Amino acid sequence: MERKQINSPSYFIGQSGGDLISFGSGQPDLPPPRQVYDVLPNYHDFKYGLIQGSENLREALALQYPEGKSSSFVITNGASEALDLSLRVLKETCKGKLFLPKPYYYSYPFNAQFSQFDVKYYELDDGKINLDRFIEQLDDVSVILINSPSNPTGSVQDIPVLKAIEKLAQERGIYIISDEVYKDLIYDRENYLIQGPHVITINSFSKTYAMCGIRVGYMYSRDPNLVQRVIEYKTHTSMNTNILGQEMALAATKVPKQYIDKQVSIWQERRDIIYQGLLDIGLEVWKPEGAFYVFPYIKNSNQVINDLYYDYNIIAYDGAWFGAPDRVRFSYALDKKKINEGLNRLESYLKKRKAG
Amino acid sequence: MERKQINSPSYFIGQSGGDLISFGSGQPDLPPPRQVYDVLPNYHDFKYGLIQGSENLREALALQYPEGKSSSFVITNGASEALDLSLRVLKETCKGKLFLPKPYYYSYPFNAQFSQFDVKYYELDDGKINLDRFIEQLDDVSVILINSPSNPTGSVQDIPVLKAIEKLAQERGIYIISDEVYKDLIYDRENYLIQGPHVITINSFSKTYAMCGIRVGYMYSRDPNLVQRVIEYKTHTSMNTNILGQEMALAATKVPKQYIDKQVSIWQERRDIIYQGLLDIGLEVWKPEGAFYVFPYIKNSNQVINDLYYDYNIIAYDGAWFGAPDRVRFSYALDKKKINEGLNRLESYLKKRKAG
Repeated sequence: MERKQINSPSYFIGQSGGDLISFGSGQPDLPPPRQVYDVLPNYHDFKYGLIQGSENLREALALQYPEGKSSSFVITNGASEALDLSLRVLKETCKGKLFLPKPYYYSYPFNAQFSQFDVKYYELDDGKINLDRFIEQLDDVSVILINSPSNPTGSVQDIPVLKAIEKLAQERGIYIISDEVYKDLIYDRENYLIQGPHVITINSFSKTYAMCGIRVGYMYSRDPNLVQRVIEYKTHTSMNTNILGQEMALAATKVPKQYIDKQVSIWQERRDIIYQGLLDIGLEVWKPEGAFYVFPYIKNSNQVINDLYYDYNIIAYDGAWFGAPDRVRFSYALDKKKINEGLNRLESYLKKRKAG
Repeated sequence: MERKQINSPSYFIGQSGGDLISFGSGQPDLPPPRQVYDVLPNYHDFKYGLIQGSENLREALALQYPEGKSSSFVITNGASEALDLSLRVLKETCKGKLFLPKPYYYSYPFNAQFSQFDVKYYELDDGKINLDRFIEQLDDVSVILINSPSNPTGSVQDIPVLKAIEKLAQERGIYIISDEVYKDLIYDRENYLIQGPHVITINSFSKTYAMCGIRVGYMYSRDPNLVQRVIEYKTHTSMNTNILGQEMALAATKVPKQYIDKQVSIWQERRDIIYQGLLDIGLEVWKPEGAFYVFPYIKNSNQVINDLYYDYNIIAYDGAWFGAPDRVRFSYALDKKKINEGLNRLESYLKKRKAG
């Protein structure tokens, strides 16, 4: 195989099968609940839906949020559109910076650029927010982005820290965008919902219900003017989210909670295997508390992911793509057997590298 | 009914049934071809698709364009997203103005605002481009938007005019965005595809195949850098278009051309009825050549559409929403019987108004 240097996750898109072991994409391997497909056989709608999203779906979501109202939600083409629209709308009134975590989900800097926000980063310490440093940096910030549980770190922020940020932001009139797409995939406690008049919660059916390709997400805000403006943007930039996808999402909201519990226990077992496996290999890594990523320290990460791909048939993502060179992101959205085989190959590679 | 003044088409969304006659929404009333639903019963995919859109769908589209290549297409959440992404990308390099028709599709000025383009308008003469005036105004223009067949005018631009603009734009390095979502709904001739290295064609499955709510559209450009940049934007702002919607669109591409021919003959019959009906009532109106709108001159159009709604149970759109006060847009996406009944009510109203 010709060794064309890999510099972006898009290189790997669509690669699967054979002997390949992919720790790449943040895509659950297990299928959605069957109820999601049950809506399909007799489906015949075709007309435009409400731009804001179907009333039924928004009502179902409202029940999941304390004092939630269906009018506070906008259903979007995945969490990505929810974030893009929210930033475009906020940029109309916010003059200060967008405060992003580092390491970050790789889209965030692009989202900032595309909505013309200047960016400032808060460095995470082994995945965790350092509250003192966070507060010191807040001066010229208009919008804080929190991503807990986090992609790529697998960290879940501590509740007192989230509460402190929530309070501070409210006092100073700073907006918080809370990207909680992994909120249902936490191993040690429940998610803490960040709340407040200037909070925008972003969520999705992609991870909890394995519906990535169906692209249904949403934004939730108690600020009716902000919601209205997001709807105005969406009216002219994409109109309603696919009406059939919304029906599938509605079916997902009715799936018994045991489905999620079972998913979480599968993820947790895999988490334990890969975490212990990386420790056994001798890598430095913190224990993920949510989502489905581990993020060990491995020097020369770009070289590593290229070697792993070309010589060991393993896909892993360069930490540099997430603002953390010398780390590698492993998604554990694959079965135990493959995780173990992947760990074996990784160990061989690292031994050989050490020897070489 | 309390008479809250109606100032936007969004007021009417979701209104239907009973005695109401809606000449409002640009939504075909006839269902999509049945093949579009045939993909549903056995559908089980759920993973992320290619951001650019499924290879199969892009290959099917490529066959519809002379020398089309699948790599030149990006599948989007309707034509709306294709336009939004195209403008955002063009704005990165274009310093001049966006040249919009007037009357215009009501989203265009918002699309310009959201992508931060300054706008300049070319006034249509009874729906037609005045080429001399058009050329005189071109000085500070970076991007021309052409919408033929047009919403709201129903006009189709003459081929020599389109060719002249195509040539001029190419000579001057001006981009053309050609919004051809009504390209299959032309009564008197084939569509003329505007072509060139700086042309972006925008299209959709919404109108031809009555799939508005499914939200599948696309952009097509021979400029690989521009296509690549649109994909980059889409990667971070919405990711792949709903994978199931894309399968439905693929099924639509395989529907025999007779389906479209039959649709067009239905639209044409309705066009003839409403056009003649408006003439008989004594209104000044040009004959629509495509799409499914008529756009007669009716003074005090906002008063008119409010009166029609509250007193005659008719939905029609104020021309002012399309940049043409004193005109009213009637969509004829409803059956003959209703069109005739609507014309009767309109006549009663206008007689009464004249008498009053």
